[in-house]
Order: sequence, then C-alpha cells, then structure tokens
Amino acid sequence: MSKNRLEAFSDGVLAIIITIMVLELKRPEHPAFSALAGMLPVLLSYVMSFIYVGIYWNNHHHMFHAVKCVNGNVLWANLHLLFWLSLFPFATAWIGESHLAPAPIAAYGAVLLMAAIAYYLLQCAILADRSNVLLAEALGKDWKGKASPIFYLAAIPLAYVNAWIALGLYGAVAAIWLIPDRRIERTLGVSERDDGHDR
Amino acid sequence: MSKNRLEAFSDGVLAIIITIMVLELKRPEHPAFSALAGMLPVLLSYVMSFIYVGIYWNNHHHMFHAVKCVNGNVLWANLHLLFWLSLFPFATAWIGESHLAPAPIAAYGAVLLMAAIAYYLLQCAILADRSNVLLAEALGKDWKGKASPIFYLAAIPLAYVNAWIALGLYGAVAAIWLIPDRRIERTLGVSERDDGHDR
Amino acid sequence: MSKNRLEAFSDGVLAIIITIMVLELKRPEHPAFSALAGMLPVLLSYVMSFIYVGIYWNNHHHMFHAVKCVNGNVLWANLHLLFWLSLFPFATAWIGESHLAPAPIAAYGAVLLMAAIAYYLLQCAILADRSNVLLAEALGKDWKGKASPIFYLAAIPLAYVNAWIALGLYGAVAAIWLIPDRRIERTLGVSERDDGHDR
Amino acid sequence: MSKNRLEAFSDGVLAIIITIMVLELKRPEHPAFSALAGMLPVLLSYVMSFIYVGIYWNNHHHMFHAVKCVNGNVLWANLHLLFWLSLFPFATAWIGESHLAPAPIAAYGAVLLMAAIAYYLLQCAILADRSNVLLAEALGKDWKGKASPIFYLAAIPLAYVNAWIALGLYGAVAAIWLIPDRRIERTLGVSERDDGHDR
Repeated sequence: MSKNRLEAFSDGVLAIIITIMVLELKRPEHPAFSALAGMLPVLLSYVMSFIYVGIYWNNHHHMFHAVKCVNGNVLWANLHLLFWLSLFPFATAWIGESHLAPAPIAAYGAVLLMAAIAYYLLQCAILADRSNVLLAEALGKDWKGKASPIFYLAAIPLAYVNAWIALGLYGAVAAIWLIPDRRIERTLGVSERDDGHDR
Repeated sequence: MSKNRLEAFSDGVLAIIITIMVLELKRPEHPAFSALAGMLPVLLSYVMSFIYVGIYWNNHHHMFHAVKCVNGNVLWANLHLLFWLSLFPFATAWIGESHLAPAPIAAYGAVLLMAAIAYYLLQCAILADRSNVLLAEALGKDWKGKASPIFYLAAIPLAYVNAWIALGLYGAVAAIWLIPDRRIERTLGVSERDDGHDR
Repeated sequence: MSKNRLEAFSDGVLAIIITIMVLELKRPEHPAFSALAGMLPVLLSYVMSFIYVGIYWNNHHHMFHAVKCVNGNVLWANLHLLFWLSLFPFATAWIGESHLAPAPIAAYGAVLLMAAIAYYLLQCAILADRSNVLLAEALGKDWKGKASPIFYLAAIPLAYVNAWIALGLYGAVAAIWLIPDRRIERTLGVSERDDGHDR
Repeated sequence: MSKNRLEAFSDGVLAIIITIMVLELKRPEHPAFSALAGMLPVLLSYVMSFIYVGIYWNNHHHMFHAVKCVNGNVLWANLHLLFWLSLFPFATAWIGESHLAPAPIAAYGAVLLMAAIAYYLLQCAILADRSNVLLAEALGKDWKGKASPIFYLAAIPLAYVNAWIALGLYGAVAAIWLIPDRRIERTLGVSERDDGHDR
C-alpha cells in the first residue's frame, strides 16, 4: 500500500493541531502591552507546544521518507500517535489557564510521555516490515528516542516539587530534538537527491 | 476524472473533524487530577469518536485504493458521507455535556447510522462504474458493513433503557472495524507493492 | 507554473470552511430531542452552507481539471473567491442565531452573490490564458453561472418581505448546481480516463 | 530530501490560519445591517490579515517553486515562519476587539515584522544550498523584502501617534506585495511551462 495518503492525512492533522492552539490564546482584557506580560505563561506554553509538534512533524517526515511499505498496523500505530498529539492543545491550554499549578504541568508531561511511546510503537510497526530495512540502518542506536521518556517520567513527579524544574526538563528534551535526525538524512542522502528530480 | 483531489479533500475534512473535537474539551475548573475524573465521560466520548473517524479514514483509504474512476455521483456520495461525519464533533460534545442522558446517546447512534448508510451509498456509487470491478471482488460479502447498521438501530432505543448498553454497542462495532479491511489489502497486495515504487 | 499547490491550498481552505461551521452549532441546553427541534433553523442553514461549499469545491475541481497554466492573476482571483467563501461560516451562524430575521438572510445572499462574482472573475482570469482553450469549449454558454447572481440579487430584497422566499431561492440555486458540471466531464472525458492511469 | 511534504504541511497550516480567523468574527447582537457597521474595524482587520496570509502563501509558493533541495535548516526556518504567521489570528482578533487602541496595532506590526524577518531567514537557509542557484538569480535585488521591515518598524511607534497612520503603512506594504513576484515567474517561465505538462 502506498504511503502517500498516510503522509497527507498526518500532515493535515499535525497542521491543524499546531494551528488551532492559537484559538485558545485569549486576548488580554486591556489593550496594552503590560497586559501581554500577564499572558507570559500562556505564550510560553504555546511556543513550547508549537516546537514539540514541529519536532514530531519533522521526525515523522524523516521517518516516513525511509519507509517503503505501509500496512494496516502502521496505519493504526500512526493514528494512535496522532491521538496523543491531538491532546497537546488541551494540555497546553490547561497549563496556560492554571498559573503554573502542578497538575496541568504533570498532565502535559503525561501527554508527552504517551506521544513518545506511541512514536516508538509506530517505529516498531514500520520496522516489523522487512522491506523497511533502510530505516533500521538509518536509526542506529536511537538514544534520543530512548532518553526522552526517562526525562518525561522524571518531570511528572517533579512538577509537584517545582513547576519550573518540570518545564525545564520538557524544554531540554525539545532542545535535544530540535537538531534534526541527520542520521536518516545522511544514510539516504544520495538516493534522495536523485529522487527529488523525479518528482 | 482522477481521484487525487477527492482523496485530498476527504483527507482534509477528516483530519479537521478528528482534530477539532479537542476544541470542545473544556479544561476542568480546578487544576487538579481529581478534576480530570469528572471529565471521564467527556474524554471517553472523545476517544470513541477519534477511533470512529480513524476507522472511516482507514476504510475510505482502503476503498479508494481500489478505485480507478471517479464520476459526479461518487463526488456527491462522498460529500454526503463527509456531511454525516462532520456531525461527529457536535454529537460527541453533546454526549460529553449531558452526563449520559439518553437523547444525546441516541442522537450519536443516529449520526453513526446515517454515516454507515452514506458509506454504503458511496460504495454503491463506486461499484456502479464497471471499471471498479477490482473493488467488488475485494469487498466480497461485506458482512461488517451489513451488521453495523443493525447494531446502531438496536442501540438507539436501548439508550433510553440504559446508556451503557448503547455505548457498549457503539464500542463493539468500533472493535469489529478496528481490524483493517484485509480483504482489499489481500486482493490488491501484489499490484500495490509495485505501484508504491512508481510514486 | 504548476496548478498542484493552488489546488492543494484551495482544497485545504474549502475543507476547513466546510468543517468549522460545525463548531458554531451550539448544543441544545436540555439533553432531549425536543430541544433539537428548536435548533431546526440552525441545522437547516448548516446543511445549506455545507451543500453550497460542496458545490463550489465540485465546480472548482471540475474547472481546474481543464486548466493547463496558472499565472499570478489566477492565484489572486482564486484567493478572492476563497475570501468570500470564508465568510460562509460567519453568515451561516448569523442566520442560525437570529431566528429568521431579514438582515442575516439578506447578508447571506450578499455573500453568495459576491462568491458567484468571484467565481466568474476566476473563470475569466483562467480563460485569459490562451492555453486554457479546452475550458472555454467545455463551459459553452454557462447559463447556470449567469442565472445564479440574478437569483441572489432578487433574494436580497425579498428577505425583507418573507424569509422563506429568500431561503427558497437560495435552495433553488443550490438544486440547479447540485447537478455536476457534466459539460466539462463530457468534453474532457476521454483524455481524463487515460490521464487517470498515468497518476 | 524532497520538498513535497514541506509544501503540503505549509499549505495546510496557511490554509488553517487564513480560515480560522473567521471563527473570531463574533456575530453582531442585533440582526440588522446597522449592527454590521459597528463591526467595521473587525471586518477590516480580517480583510487585511486575509490579504497578508494570501501574500505569504503566494510568495512561499513562488519561492519553493525555484527550490531543488530541502535540508534540516530549511525545515526549521520554515516552521519558524509558520510560527509567526500563526499569531496573525491572535493579533487580528486583538485589534478587532480593542477599537483601534495603539497597543494591539503596534503588536500587529511586531508580528508582521517578525514574520518578515522569518521569511528572510528562510530565504537565506534556502540560498545557502548551492543547488538553489536558480532562486538567487530570480530574486535579484529583492527591494520589497528589504523595504517591508522598515515600514513595519516605522509603523510600530506611529501606532501610538495615530492608529490610522500605522494601519495605512500596513496596507501600503500589502499593496506593494499584492503584485506577485513576477521576477521568479519570468526567470522560470519557460521550464515551468514544460514542467506543468509532466505533472
């Protein structure tokens, strides 16, 4: 089965997730810049979620670039990932509304954790098909994918100690991922360059 | 007429339907996990609708994979299906807001029923074109498509007896469909694998 | 310039317009079917707008099928059309909220009129390029395109006489358009069928 | 790496940004045309933002038409641009709600400025790849790209002098850009016309 529609549908869902979060940004009541200062936690959680969805899109893009075949399991593993990502606007808005209370920050970490697990399961579903051997090579040790859930797991209880520690951990993981998955780019580099001309 | 834009438009609409439901998830008033417990019916109806839209996308994807030609009737039958699916966020939010009252649960079943009928009509519109004979073979007896409306029809009055019986029936149908349409995958398997390389 | 991205962008905007209207459907306060009866004008205006956006997508799809070249004027004429279509959710919600008051129904007619004019301008921009001669043939006399604005113009003042006359006129135009543009399908029929296999 | 998914994702995000702004258009309380007059600043800011997003889509479309290769830096520079564009609905709604108060108008200018800078950075990221030499030729002196930020910078303090001066400057820049980037169209013209037939 071709991967085109799966990519198109995922792009659509990710584009909507990344964009509708702005609908939750309530405008300040007073039309003054000082009012924007009170919105700082809301804006920061918006920026962080934007970056996280961007990272997921980026990695999804890279991963499927190396995929040849898509089967029913991959379709459902992909929808499972999209489900957890679809909760980002909810978790983001909850943080923004609750002035750094611990529960919303822990809930955000739980959504991040579930999304990371879903991404890992999607990767497994893809690798289960032997025709996708190129991706297995490109992924190599995948230390980022293994380290991120540990950070999230640590951040969830730490949210009850101090909100900023948890938020700092989420930010640190985002920073690690911001560097795109050059492994795949490197492994596939030559063939893609030719591929680009065919399209 | 080519099927590309019909697929792209349907993917867009389905991606939006599946994602905007999250906008109806109101954040709990108290920033505590205990408040999330009170959201359980809301979250469950969100999960169920997410799965249902995922099933429709999945089946739509599989069905159009076997389609060669698209005519005006197919375009309108497809829009008719999208219309009923577009009411999912409305029906889902109504269930979530009304604490398991019977009317919203029956209304949800009615929307599911109409979507199932619309899907059947779309299938008929496609099969009316003789060039799509491959799909007819792949569908075979289609017992799932025939059984689902019976379940929905039964669930609508049962919602007035007990909300959980109706919800259980909706969940049971979803579970039946979660297994992707391997018939089509099997029938088309060999040609698709070759097809994938051409794209 | 290729028409692919213009089609993709238009599909995206139309998919969003057709879907976000459901966000304006407020759930009834009482969880009972009798409460849905009070929603009837809201639901009817939703159905009509869904059909209208579907018609525009359908005609847009057919028209661009016959287009070979896209230039800057076509891009802007297309955005102009999308602008007026983007006001459909606003006009629809206003009708739904105001219990058949004349002004919202007239405003809806004005949006329909402007969208029809924008569609005509888009058609002109496409036909100005001589390479799109196939579309000119396919369009022929285009009596539907010429009759629709007259109906809308008549409906706007009639909304102040009786809401149902204006709504009936809008419905009548929709019914005329529901029959897809078979002219284009016929003229292009043979080449498209071959074309479909190449994709 | 191919540019297809980057274009598809950007189209999706831009389509959503341009469309969800309509959700912020609150319907007037009285169902009369006189009530629409009070909405004039809201409607005007909607029109201006629609045009601005349209300009960005148009230029993005033209720029990527001349792009051969996409790397990680381009992906992130593109997401950075989409981030600032995603704040358009927020800034637009703030202007609409605050009756021409200076702070929202200055904030709108700041978002325009950041988007212009992000677009410039994206252009740099693309030109850093030597295979995109065609774009460098097509861009030439790029006086529009250099003049726009100066206008925005001037408009931000002027918003505190008189709202209409700032809005006039935003409108003037939009008018400059409304003329599509014919440079790229001209440079690529011949090859694209052939290209169009291959697709």
